[in-house]
Amino acid sequence: MSVSESYDVAIVGGGPAGLTAGLYATRARLKTILLEKIGFGGQLLSYETVENYPGFPEGVGAFDLAELIRTHSLKFGLQARNAEVGQLQIGNLIKEIHLADGNILYSKTVILASGASPNKLGVKGETEFTGRGVSYCAVCDAPFYRNQEIAVVGGGDTALEEAIYLSKFADRVHVIHRRDRLRAIPIIQNRAAENDKISLVLNAVVTEIQGGPQGVEGLILRDTKDSRVWEFPINGVFVLVGVRPNGSYLPLEIDRDALGFVRTDQEMATSVPGVFAAGDLRQKRLRQIVTAVGDGATAAFSAGQYIEEHFHHIS
Amino acid sequence: MSVSESYDVAIVGGGPAGLTAGLYATRARLKTILLEKIGFGGQLLSYETVENYPGFPEGVGAFDLAELIRTHSLKFGLQARNAEVGQLQIGNLIKEIHLADGNILYSKTVILASGASPNKLGVKGETEFTGRGVSYCAVCDAPFYRNQEIAVVGGGDTALEEAIYLSKFADRVHVIHRRDRLRAIPIIQNRAAENDKISLVLNAVVTEIQGGPQGVEGLILRDTKDSRVWEFPINGVFVLVGVRPNGSYLPLEIDRDALGFVRTDQEMATSVPGVFAAGDLRQKRLRQIVTAVGDGATAAFSAGQYIEEHFHHIS
Repeated sequence: MSVSESYDVAIVGGGPAGLTAGLYATRARLKTILLEKIGFGGQLLSYETVENYPGFPEGVGAFDLAELIRTHSLKFGLQARNAEVGQLQIGNLIKEIHLADGNILYSKTVILASGASPNKLGVKGETEFTGRGVSYCAVCDAPFYRNQEIAVVGGGDTALEEAIYLSKFADRVHVIHRRDRLRAIPIIQNRAAENDKISLVLNAVVTEIQGGPQGVEGLILRDTKDSRVWEFPINGVFVLVGVRPNGSYLPLEIDRDALGFVRTDQEMATSVPGVFAAGDLRQKRLRQIVTAVGDGATAAFSAGQYIEEHFHHIS
Repeated sequence: MSVSESYDVAIVGGGPAGLTAGLYATRARLKTILLEKIGFGGQLLSYETVENYPGFPEGVGAFDLAELIRTHSLKFGLQARNAEVGQLQIGNLIKEIHLADGNILYSKTVILASGASPNKLGVKGETEFTGRGVSYCAVCDAPFYRNQEIAVVGGGDTALEEAIYLSKFADRVHVIHRRDRLRAIPIIQNRAAENDKISLVLNAVVTEIQGGPQGVEGLILRDTKDSRVWEFPINGVFVLVGVRPNGSYLPLEIDRDALGFVRTDQEMATSVPGVFAAGDLRQKRLRQIVTAVGDGATAAFSAGQYIEEHFHHIS
């Protein structure tokens, strides 16, 4: 591999947003490389079934959908490479992508699509039962828990809002929080308190998620005050203790919100000319496959327009 | 049918944006009705093949995709009805949807997803060959015209920009414009003038689109000055004479741009609380299936949050 390679578009991240950006960019005849650190498909690779990606009325296996989108994105000449981005230098007209392996790529534009990751509890059983009773996304998975008894772990605004959302499906929602009071703002706490399907388990932490071949069957809880340990039978647990953007490589010039999510305009432009963002890495309220692919297409289109405007007399 | 029916969400328009909004709203257990004037699938129903909706690497028939998305949207209880909206009354907390047949629906929220329509030339052969050589969307169809000779009809910014875009695919792009000068801004005209694949045919109007079983074979042009008529052989024609929003029913309170497209924020909220918009009806740069479905999901989510915030103590 040569030390120097140059592209029209360099995409960081190979989930649905990045892959769709690659599809749109290459279909528009832009020379495009996509860099993915782990596996093509992004967060799809940690789920089982997708019920809400339009066009698959019977649902589709998450891994199968990842593979379909990956295959699709490669149809028009996308170069996809397993590589980790070390840092970006984006102050000049030509952007530099410094890979962790020491190589440097050059590109007229960059699309940031490295996604976000839900914070985990880090307890036994959590990884094993992800997608089989352990979920990080109420909008995605709530309908799988109709008339069941479930737990939500967390005490912030999102945890409470999603507990309310889940109460429309589940028979009972236990909100488990480590402290003696919730962190959510009062109006949301009030709404949860008035909801007779929601009950609170305070001063408790999950120490283990237990289950069998059918998935999750219960939690082991520990009281944070008296260290008492007990079993807590439930059919599912939503871990809602925060989401963090995968953005450790991002330079300071990229405007981000307090949590580190990248701010863009409606056309996916970031604060730095020639740098766009798409998918879960963006500051937005709904993070879904269907929104990620839309973002990716728009980011690729905007990158193409930017190139047309800024490189017309060069190349 | 009763004179009065009430819903959580009323969606106007049954293209990909509206259908996806319906899928997301009903999957979130909101009582939802979708109103479609013509056919479920929207603009998809006037196309042949879709190459760029992620997840279908071999491409998919446009009608088939419309049917898949429609079927999918009905899985979670969406009520879809063939009905035309006469007018909306959206000033109060409960919105009124007055149907053209005289019935009135009541809803806590409204999602506007009635789309946009490309302006047509209105000439013989245009409808017959739509999707088989007549196109209204360069981003959608450019790759089907690799190494071919094509025409673009129009003289504005979009027509010239898309002619430049098409020149990356086609061998030759003839821009046909009715006047003796283009309307596009000078910088875009210059770019087109410097592109040796683009040629101009001024003072000419298309009077007929001709073709055979394989699709378009040529145009009949008429000179607007001397009325001379001649045949112009090409393999495809992009009609780029403007797009208009399908918004004749929209009340004045909904903020729209000079062309009539609805302005929203990134969460699809319009200027009127409780009214959201999604898809091609919105002011935005890229109008595609993949962006429409993302908009639809976000609009439904925002509608759900709005209901949670404004109707918590009512219901």
